[in-house]
Amino acid sequence: MSAAPSRPVCILGLGLIGGSLLRRLSDTGGPAFGYNRSAGTVEAAVADGYDASTDLSAVLERARNDDAIVVLATPFTALEPMITSVRDLAPDCLLTDVVSVKEQVSDLVRRLHPRARYVGGHPMTGTTESGWPATDPALFEGAMWMVATHDDTVADDWLDVAGIALAAGSYVVPAADDAHDRAAAAISHNPHLTAAVTATVGAGESDLALRLAAGSFRDGTRVAGTAPDLQRAMLEANSVALLNTLSETIDRLITARDALREHGDVAVIVDDGHRARRKYERIAGSPPEPITGVRIGDARWQEELRRQAHLARVWMG
Amino acid sequence: MSAAPSRPVCILGLGLIGGSLLRRLSDTGGPAFGYNRSAGTVEAAVADGYDASTDLSAVLERARNDDAIVVLATPFTALEPMITSVRDLAPDCLLTDVVSVKEQVSDLVRRLHPRARYVGGHPMTGTTESGWPATDPALFEGAMWMVATHDDTVADDWLDVAGIALAAGSYVVPAADDAHDRAAAAISHNPHLTAAVTATVGAGESDLALRLAAGSFRDGTRVAGTAPDLQRAMLEANSVALLNTLSETIDRLITARDALREHGDVAVIVDDGHRARRKYERIAGSPPEPITGVRIGDARWQEELRRQAHLARVWMG
Repeated sequence: MSAAPSRPVCILGLGLIGGSLLRRLSDTGGPAFGYNRSAGTVEAAVADGYDASTDLSAVLERARNDDAIVVLATPFTALEPMITSVRDLAPDCLLTDVVSVKEQVSDLVRRLHPRARYVGGHPMTGTTESGWPATDPALFEGAMWMVATHDDTVADDWLDVAGIALAAGSYVVPAADDAHDRAAAAISHNPHLTAAVTATVGAGESDLALRLAAGSFRDGTRVAGTAPDLQRAMLEANSVALLNTLSETIDRLITARDALREHGDVAVIVDDGHRARRKYERIAGSPPEPITGVRIGDARWQEELRRQAHLARVWMG
Repeated sequence: MSAAPSRPVCILGLGLIGGSLLRRLSDTGGPAFGYNRSAGTVEAAVADGYDASTDLSAVLERARNDDAIVVLATPFTALEPMITSVRDLAPDCLLTDVVSVKEQVSDLVRRLHPRARYVGGHPMTGTTESGWPATDPALFEGAMWMVATHDDTVADDWLDVAGIALAAGSYVVPAADDAHDRAAAAISHNPHLTAAVTATVGAGESDLALRLAAGSFRDGTRVAGTAPDLQRAMLEANSVALLNTLSETIDRLITARDALREHGDVAVIVDDGHRARRKYERIAGSPPEPITGVRIGDARWQEELRRQAHLARVWMG
């Protein structure tokens, strides 16, 4: 599962995700090199023994010459100049990304680089830390890595992108962009908002309250500690799906407040939450079941992968 | 800090908190014994070498004869028969509790046992597990243990109750009942509601979503896994304070939804949450500063303890 990808991998952006990927692929023997605009980051990466540069043109020319797979790994808000540079300097390279939304990235790629061979991706992992010092080659171990799987996705390109995920130690979750973005809103972006408001309400009470805070506050507010600009870039790029989950969150809390005010009880919200959490624990707590019986490239392979992924199965190669 | 209390400790209720306290005090040499209505729990405790019984009358007669400190450690909803039994069988014993709300417990004690020598308490610790198998003598290590501190609190009784907290390895946080309950709503009970709704919204999207769920969902929904009846007993006993924090939570989320819908941005909620989380990390992440310059029993000692506790300081004996 951890074999190196068949071709070199060129990573644009060496923050937590891109930097960790450069380290992981390089450490396991795959040729990988990267670009970052910050000289400090590149110096730190080179000092740690990795192949990195601040010269975007040189990096992309090398990618073109090596027929590398190019990975977009900047925050969403910094993607545009990356994509136009890829179009101008390495137009035929297979392109993927590790950005946390898929529809908006796909739209951007289509608009800026319409001839791109693009298969999007998103590793579901991270920490509240950011930047090169936080990078960790084990970050992707056992993580779920969404690989965009549409009816027109090209089999060989999909296999190459999935191969990066497997090489990084992840499981591959095939999904359409919109299904991914709705899921990400529900299980990642909305939790950032509820963590933020929980932290704010708790800290607003008193320093005594923060002194008394224990596990429920510590864990429930953890992701609110992520750098605000990174949270904004991620959440605002998924605003349509996030508006839906946020509205549902508000509606359910209002129903709970009415029940608490009128009957003094919190049964429904607590019972629903408990059932949901148990279901999550069942899915997350057991080894993922593999997608079976489909060969990439067979007729309607994309549809069959998506169908099985909706049953919470993963692709293991 | 871990010396055994000067007198025997009698614990009524041997669930996660009461059972862990029995183990901790017994393990460190203090005479401690307990009652639980479930024969299974008592058998498990006795098999593990602890002094426990299902005979409430016998346990309370022993407490009276030994002048034990009696600790109420059942869920709030089961307190009433415990308090009346204490009144009938061990009326002169110093009484405390480890229940998660303080005003309602104080009211109940005043109503059912008006002559009680009662000093409330609340260790801010727990896990999502419950019952004897989950008990852990280290549960209180480094935790914050609120000890009720009012203008009429008797110095010797306060010292005895604080002594149990110190013997269990905790820091003592002196506070009035209402301040504690507002704080608990803000940093414990409200986080249970936001965890529950976050879990429900996430699980309602799809099994694909739960498969993709990573750290933000795992940590942000953890306490939703606590047994629903225990959550209800805790939250519903603090309904007034919880209504306030829940309403503030809803108001802030509505403001965030409006900003997201109208301007596509989540800056305010993310920035506020980040600032709040950082403040919490500053307080929780450094060793607590001790309350100084006050001797228990001096004029207005209670007021001075409360004042310093509001600066996030703790009492270390």
